[in-house]
Amino acid sequence: MIPNNWYNIVPDLPEPPPPPLHPGTRQPVGPDDLAPLFPAELIAQEVSGERFVPIPQEVLDVYRLWRPTPLMRARRLEKALGTPARIYYKYEGVSPAGSHKPNTAVPQAYYNAREGVRLLTTETGAGQWGSALAFACSQFDVECRIWMVRASYDQKPYRRSLMQVYGATVHASPSPVTKAGGKVLADDPGSPGSLGIAISEAVEVAAANHDARYALGSVLNHVLMHQTVIGEEALAQLPEMPDLVIGCTGGGSNFAGLAFPFLREKLAGRLETEFRAVEPAACPSFTRGVYAYDYGDAAGFTPLLKMHTLGHSFVPDPIHAGGLRYHGMSPLLSHMYELGLFTAVTRSQRECFAAGVRFARTEGILPAPEPTHALAETIAEALRCKESGEEKVILTALCGHGHFDLAAFDRYLADELEDYMLPQERIDQALTELPG
Amino acid sequence: MIPNNWYNIVPDLPEPPPPPLHPGTRQPVGPDDLAPLFPAELIAQEVSGERFVPIPQEVLDVYRLWRPTPLMRARRLEKALGTPARIYYKYEGVSPAGSHKPNTAVPQAYYNAREGVRLLTTETGAGQWGSALAFACSQFDVECRIWMVRASYDQKPYRRSLMQVYGATVHASPSPVTKAGGKVLADDPGSPGSLGIAISEAVEVAAANHDARYALGSVLNHVLMHQTVIGEEALAQLPEMPDLVIGCTGGGSNFAGLAFPFLREKLAGRLETEFRAVEPAACPSFTRGVYAYDYGDAAGFTPLLKMHTLGHSFVPDPIHAGGLRYHGMSPLLSHMYELGLFTAVTRSQRECFAAGVRFARTEGILPAPEPTHALAETIAEALRCKESGEEKVILTALCGHGHFDLAAFDRYLADELEDYMLPQERIDQALTELPG
Repeated sequence: MIPNNWYNIVPDLPEPPPPPLHPGTRQPVGPDDLAPLFPAELIAQEVSGERFVPIPQEVLDVYRLWRPTPLMRARRLEKALGTPARIYYKYEGVSPAGSHKPNTAVPQAYYNAREGVRLLTTETGAGQWGSALAFACSQFDVECRIWMVRASYDQKPYRRSLMQVYGATVHASPSPVTKAGGKVLADDPGSPGSLGIAISEAVEVAAANHDARYALGSVLNHVLMHQTVIGEEALAQLPEMPDLVIGCTGGGSNFAGLAFPFLREKLAGRLETEFRAVEPAACPSFTRGVYAYDYGDAAGFTPLLKMHTLGHSFVPDPIHAGGLRYHGMSPLLSHMYELGLFTAVTRSQRECFAAGVRFARTEGILPAPEPTHALAETIAEALRCKESGEEKVILTALCGHGHFDLAAFDRYLADELEDYMLPQERIDQALTELPG
Repeated sequence: MIPNNWYNIVPDLPEPPPPPLHPGTRQPVGPDDLAPLFPAELIAQEVSGERFVPIPQEVLDVYRLWRPTPLMRARRLEKALGTPARIYYKYEGVSPAGSHKPNTAVPQAYYNAREGVRLLTTETGAGQWGSALAFACSQFDVECRIWMVRASYDQKPYRRSLMQVYGATVHASPSPVTKAGGKVLADDPGSPGSLGIAISEAVEVAAANHDARYALGSVLNHVLMHQTVIGEEALAQLPEMPDLVIGCTGGGSNFAGLAFPFLREKLAGRLETEFRAVEPAACPSFTRGVYAYDYGDAAGFTPLLKMHTLGHSFVPDPIHAGGLRYHGMSPLLSHMYELGLFTAVTRSQRECFAAGVRFARTEGILPAPEPTHALAETIAEALRCKESGEEKVILTALCGHGHFDLAAFDRYLADELEDYMLPQERIDQALTELPG
């Protein structure tokens, strides 16, 4: 029941997404530009024109540790809401790292190992991606070094411990072991770090080391493609086709992973499903950003990506859904949003946690803060159906558990959780720094 | 594939276990003695002579949120060990509370709710049982109050948070809201508490309140019977029958849940499987305790139970497998041990954590400290098979995940974890206080 292929949606789109550009030349980035950072097979997948890419047997042998993941009907939640809607959820929290991230971490580690790479580097914020890559590297005997944003390193020791149990080395970022980190520390020895700094450190070490490469957990085309195992399984598991698919978006890989196979069926005229992305009110790249070329990182080291962005210098408020605190959006999803293939809405932090608690008390699973955004929208839609009497079939992406996020639930229950408003001037200010 | 019946092994045994006795009269305890604490249906199940007890539809409707649980072959662990043994594990960590405990918490909450009980009380140490009961009560609209040992309440805030997310009220024990707790606090305002004190508080509130009852997470016959869903599923899922079943034992419900259905088949002559309980070297009730009537709690409030015990005043060293830190053992399992139906061995803390890390790096799942005891024994057996060339089929009980135990793994990786030796005089001393 685990699919044998990943689905690449690009050739099914009416036009391909705009290419990444070199920030100096403004010319499209080619494979040679990317070779110091990624293995050849992943570069090929990034620009592939094939609709289906076979999943290697060695990857399937690891996927089977937790895949296929459960597809459940939320009957107890439906009953508690008194809705005629039928709610299904696809649950990725059963993976070793507790989220959907291993779906791409495993093939990334595999292709790197196959091409002789001995060391993978990456950055991590709250630690979901870092723990997924640490697990994946343990499966293929690849060394793994992770730069974890100092603030999270100190605040979330358990995520760090999990990476170490899987055998990874974890550096607090900024670290003294890189030039980029050393420079920050020289200026500010107490720096709490940022994702932008951590990326610079991981990239520096990968680029300087001929048998090392770098790994990214979202945003890129091949990452989104690896996640389509979620939607392919759901298509086969569902007893009825959804009228509406709902998923949260940060970099976009979770939403894309569930939605793309259903979008393929819709583009082929076999489904009439609608699709809805849910982003945090504190980081609304689709709904309040612009569609423009911008850097993928805060420091401006990456190629220019055409995407919905709040500006690479935008720093989101510290919502607990750390996986959604990204200034930009997958260029592929951004392109598809412009084509009108899905809509996007925002949800604020407190209504998301309220939805998470409601879900835990009915369906039992404690959700991570990220998918509570999808749950809040799902519950709102189900209550609209209660008003209208519509028996809508809703499918939502429950992309991870909240076992490492209980301090946030604690604050919610104590009525201490913030509901960040985002003033327009903060977005306007960041957008003045767009390149070019 | 979820079974429709629980299996009661008592009528299949050559003789029934000795009954609990009233500590004053030394006469067997009757249903009337238990009625203030337990609902009638659970008292009936405790002494049932039926081999199979139907699982109510309302309980099955909750079980289906995570059952059937995965039965996996540990191919990657086998390969890493280079063993010809075939290792299977039944994974209960996919439940809402992350362990096997909801298998009995759900029917206990259901029967109490059906008999009009409005409030369930219990004690919890590290929090596995408390979070399971909190979840179960949320499913049947029963209020839940939990006395959590003060030391754990302060050290493990996330387990407390999880209980609160499920809607339970959690008291640090000793608490000022009971006479028992107030008395302790009067003598020692800074008391760290104990399981014995917490039991006293929970029992006091249940007994004093006509629509309240008390719930226990292990030891009793009906609790072990509810856990047989684990073994029944495994029997149906396995592609080949095990030569050896291995499970850890604290109060005994995890081991019994997996083993009893296989033992039924063996008693009927259909299997030749061997069974092995694994207990912590720091709390070896089977292997170094005596088989005698003793109290189930430290304070001596319970009926006398004939069981393997280290003495009710025995205080185990603070190993991280909190669920195995119990001075006694299920009377039913104790009786069966005397009948020679299974053997028991011990494993020390450091070798258990080593096994846990090895398992995480091969099979991906981070195990709780309790089942690392079963994993340590499984790995040792698989390595014996490597020596002998035996293709033994081993089935082990992976009864929970370690997502809330990463501080302990941290200490193991830092080489700071203790390997407690248990001097014989500590056992001898505690055994001098056996009743009667």
